[in-house]
Amino acid sequence: MYPTTDNPPGPGDIPHSRPALLLSMGPGVADRLLDARHHTRLAALTRTDSRLVAHELADPAPEVAAALADAEVLLTCWGAPRLTERVLAAAPRLRAVVHAAGSVKHHITEACWQRGITVTSAASVNALPVAEYTLAAILFANKRVLHTAHRYRTLRAPHDWQRELAGAGNYGRTVGIIGASRIGRRLIELLRPFDLRVLLHDPYVDTAGAAHLGVTPVPLDTLCAESDIVTAHAPQLPSTHHLLGARELALMPDGATLINTARGSLVEETALLAELLTGRLHAVLDVTDPELPPPDSPLYDLPNVLLTPHLAGSLGGELHRLADRALDEVARFAAGLPFADPVHPAGQDRSA
Amino acid sequence: MYPTTDNPPGPGDIPHSRPALLLSMGPGVADRLLDARHHTRLAALTRTDSRLVAHELADPAPEVAAALADAEVLLTCWGAPRLTERVLAAAPRLRAVVHAAGSVKHHITEACWQRGITVTSAASVNALPVAEYTLAAILFANKRVLHTAHRYRTLRAPHDWQRELAGAGNYGRTVGIIGASRIGRRLIELLRPFDLRVLLHDPYVDTAGAAHLGVTPVPLDTLCAESDIVTAHAPQLPSTHHLLGARELALMPDGATLINTARGSLVEETALLAELLTGRLHAVLDVTDPELPPPDSPLYDLPNVLLTPHLAGSLGGELHRLADRALDEVARFAAGLPFADPVHPAGQDRSA
Repeated sequence: MYPTTDNPPGPGDIPHSRPALLLSMGPGVADRLLDARHHTRLAALTRTDSRLVAHELADPAPEVAAALADAEVLLTCWGAPRLTERVLAAAPRLRAVVHAAGSVKHHITEACWQRGITVTSAASVNALPVAEYTLAAILFANKRVLHTAHRYRTLRAPHDWQRELAGAGNYGRTVGIIGASRIGRRLIELLRPFDLRVLLHDPYVDTAGAAHLGVTPVPLDTLCAESDIVTAHAPQLPSTHHLLGARELALMPDGATLINTARGSLVEETALLAELLTGRLHAVLDVTDPELPPPDSPLYDLPNVLLTPHLAGSLGGELHRLADRALDEVARFAAGLPFADPVHPAGQDRSA
Repeated sequence: MYPTTDNPPGPGDIPHSRPALLLSMGPGVADRLLDARHHTRLAALTRTDSRLVAHELADPAPEVAAALADAEVLLTCWGAPRLTERVLAAAPRLRAVVHAAGSVKHHITEACWQRGITVTSAASVNALPVAEYTLAAILFANKRVLHTAHRYRTLRAPHDWQRELAGAGNYGRTVGIIGASRIGRRLIELLRPFDLRVLLHDPYVDTAGAAHLGVTPVPLDTLCAESDIVTAHAPQLPSTHHLLGARELALMPDGATLINTARGSLVEETALLAELLTGRLHAVLDVTDPELPPPDSPLYDLPNVLLTPHLAGSLGGELHRLADRALDEVARFAAGLPFADPVHPAGQDRSA
């Protein structure tokens, strides 16, 4: 058995100080993830050449192979190669993987769990910007801000906006959250200072769980029928494909807004388009199906749609927050402490 | 001397129960302010014909004159006529004014203070939607959401958005707040859950006061030079006219965003336009100077500008929050309690 943080390293290892670390992620990612401050901190915490980034581990270049043979911890991010049995065989000292992004299911394999490698991810930090984008989208949608900006541009004349917006505003409106994922839970927290009613649909959250979160648990149909805003934070799974179909969208009240920052496949897009083209519903779509709509898609131009190119997640300087969190975990590992935010093998089938 | 809440009513009055109330506000306002629930509550708390609304008090219709002669409390809102000495002389029993909106300086006169009439306003509640609009504008601006939506609409093709938005995001950015008004203070509260640095410029807030608010006090020039977002929450006063002129705008970093939800006159608009036309700065403008820009103004069309028709304040259902707060104060008055949120004569020269 290989040592983990629950099984302290033996006399031959270097205990509690400067473990050997290798970076492994897709091309171009490390340059955006790490700034000079991070390289300095990595040098202090670990034995690493933090400018060496392994994009490929199954058939690595010699310097990568040497670093992999020595590595006790991998620092991974988007595009990290899969840790297959072959890769693990070439990494005999590997005890931990620190993932500076959300889901680990693309590179952490059953073989990693069987070998007792401990894993942590920055999923909780990666959830923050998506919840923040969604909060801003809710506050603007309830107030009809973007649609009214379009109307103002069109009219350019005196107009009774109070009358036009008589039904709008962020007081007593209902927000329906689909999925108490990390993002959904963070959104619930962020909504607390506002005078809004929050409904939650999540098949894995019971009444007591919802009460603990301070929200009202409802079936999906009720959520759709009663919400001024419906926002999707469910994972992409076979069971969530077209979760919001023609029937569910038809239940939404006139003038309601659908927000999707999760995955395009959660929504039956042809049905949504039909509702958007009549103007009955509004939408904020950071994801679509396909991800890039065809050039003639009405989604680009409809005044009741805000369409963005999958930017709600960590982006720009927000990647430094992922790095900060990952390096906090590296520091814990180097100090012989367990990870603050470990990933467990169970539950991976329910997450994004 | 007339009775106030500090001077309990004498034996001839009806103590602590159902005072006579008259509504006074501009035409059309009461219908948007009050719903059926509010009329029911007013009938329970007061002696009133809550369907009678005085738009005019100096030369009132007979039924308004009768109600004014009897009124102990006025419920006012936008467009309420001024309470001149002549009006007050026709309202001998008047002891209090409950204003279901923000500023009282348009209708509360020196004569009111001299007569010892107590005044309350819903200014703290009226601040909420403006702070909420501003929060959403900040979260979207730091992430370049609206500008990127415009770019997406233009490109409609695969594009490296992570590269284009390398400098964006809501992590470690700086928000500069001008004015610790009710709105500014509420915005400071709302910004707490986010990883943003908050600077404050307010000549009336000292270092200890800023520390209490959890922000860094800075001179205006420093605020402009160091902020990714500059947001104005100062009152319209001679001293704040063109507070943000060509010089201050030039201090703002490339790509920074100016948010103005206060008054158009705070910003030297020709200087701002010059900065917006080059694309160097971005702006979110809920107010302009003049309030309705001319039809050929570039503000309507620039992709780096969000222009809205003065909608950040209470609007639509948000007016019911003003009514809820005002009726809470009417209930306190009817119970013989002092107002929870009294307006004092001092300080009116510093507020909006």
